[in-house]
Amino acid sequence: MFVKRTSLRVRYAETDQMGVVYYGNYAQYFEVGRVEALRALGMSYREMEEGGVMLPVHKLELQYLKPALYDDLLTIETRITEMPSTRIRFHHEVFNESNDLLTKGLVELVFVNRSNRRPCRVPASFLEKIGSYF
Amino acid sequence: MFVKRTSLRVRYAETDQMGVVYYGNYAQYFEVGRVEALRALGMSYREMEEGGVMLPVHKLELQYLKPALYDDLLTIETRITEMPSTRIRFHHEVFNESNDLLTKGLVELVFVNRSNRRPCRVPASFLEKIGSYF
Amino acid sequence: MFVKRTSLRVRYAETDQMGVVYYGNYAQYFEVGRVEALRALGMSYREMEEGGVMLPVHKLELQYLKPALYDDLLTIETRITEMPSTRIRFHHEVFNESNDLLTKGLVELVFVNRSNRRPCRVPASFLEKIGSYF
Amino acid sequence: MFVKRTSLRVRYAETDQMGVVYYGNYAQYFEVGRVEALRALGMSYREMEEGGVMLPVHKLELQYLKPALYDDLLTIETRITEMPSTRIRFHHEVFNESNDLLTKGLVELVFVNRSNRRPCRVPASFLEKIGSYF
Repeated sequence: MFVKRTSLRVRYAETDQMGVVYYGNYAQYFEVGRVEALRALGMSYREMEEGGVMLPVHKLELQYLKPALYDDLLTIETRITEMPSTRIRFHHEVFNESNDLLTKGLVELVFVNRSNRRPCRVPASFLEKIGSYF
Repeated sequence: MFVKRTSLRVRYAETDQMGVVYYGNYAQYFEVGRVEALRALGMSYREMEEGGVMLPVHKLELQYLKPALYDDLLTIETRITEMPSTRIRFHHEVFNESNDLLTKGLVELVFVNRSNRRPCRVPASFLEKIGSYF
Repeated sequence: MFVKRTSLRVRYAETDQMGVVYYGNYAQYFEVGRVEALRALGMSYREMEEGGVMLPVHKLELQYLKPALYDDLLTIETRITEMPSTRIRFHHEVFNESNDLLTKGLVELVFVNRSNRRPCRVPASFLEKIGSYF
Repeated sequence: MFVKRTSLRVRYAETDQMGVVYYGNYAQYFEVGRVEALRALGMSYREMEEGGVMLPVHKLELQYLKPALYDDLLTIETRITEMPSTRIRFHHEVFNESNDLLTKGLVELVFVNRSNRRPCRVPASFLEKIGSYF
């Protein structure tokens, strides 16, 4: 298993008139967690894409337990619990500074060849880097 | 069962550099479908909130089948398939102009008292309007 | 001069915890006004881009007079007051249903060749369509 | 004069299909710069708002010189060049890691009483903290 924790601060733009983070914005928070998890593994999503492999999202599941508030310093905990195949799954949990679990969710992405937009195998360099965690 | 179809056009802002609608933006599209479904039932979410009842989201599930593209005229099909209790569930399907199913998902919301932010019953006026569909 | 009026409804996602539309979201509203103005002229921004010409924004100016609220049905009034050269300017005004002027602004865009990302002339088909208004 | 530099990384969600940061998203980047400038002065925008004073935006001006790209680590340089009165102006410049100036702009905000939404004076604690810079 691989785990990475990342912090970010809630922007005013991300709140709504209920005074909490809008429910759709967690998809962005998960994206930040995912990208930093890959970076911690020695990979850059940007370079992977420049190298011809994209990772469109196939599935998103989200549960909202407590609201995140403006200016909260959130921690996004990102886990990869299984060896990726043609798909990769990220498990995310979002905590506030009091360590309350606010949101948890799952994002499943598919490796896709950038030129023909068809599913492809996990890049070998990726497997190499992540292999030691499983 | 209650069904409502709503249209919206994809904005440039909603695309990402993969050239498709960013995965997090469907939460907004579902919101539009939800609000127009309520309006078609003779209810305004704005008035409900002004009347002291809020509907925070409790759960979101999304599956991405095909991408939506810039300037696509999308149809959001919104279904309420069960009588709401302390919760209400909306089932959404998003189609493009060729009638391809692009995305489908589920949003579960909880009726909450605006002053104490605790779960509350469905407003009676709401039940009355939706009752005839079940 | 060319004028086009377009309507859109404020989404919950677009509000912030001040209970009004977040100031950055007017850029999206202006984009909607701009795209619909082009469509009314018989042009599609999507086709222009597919044809190899992009229109990145060079300048944005915005004044906020009154707030737009959740669920407001806004009218975006978009004006082209000068014949475009290598640049094109759109003047926007946003009104609510009481016809209050909420926001006004200016967006200046540059015609750019998609392949080399360098400034280019206005496409001839564009000039032809817009010419009769000046 | 007061200056504060803040960093942030471009999110995938913030790009558009031109492959660059969408023009409207700089308003959020400026907000981040502004909030961190206030924090560096010993003030929290969150506390100011909880204390009954809001800061809605009155004017925004933005010039786009070069595009910001996905995953760029940007620096937002925020300057307050004049003592605030009923208004406060923030001057922002955005740089990438090669120190290219990408965007510059100005945001003017108005101090407003939260309860009656009318313009009010700068809070005394604010003037005290910022006073030494002018």
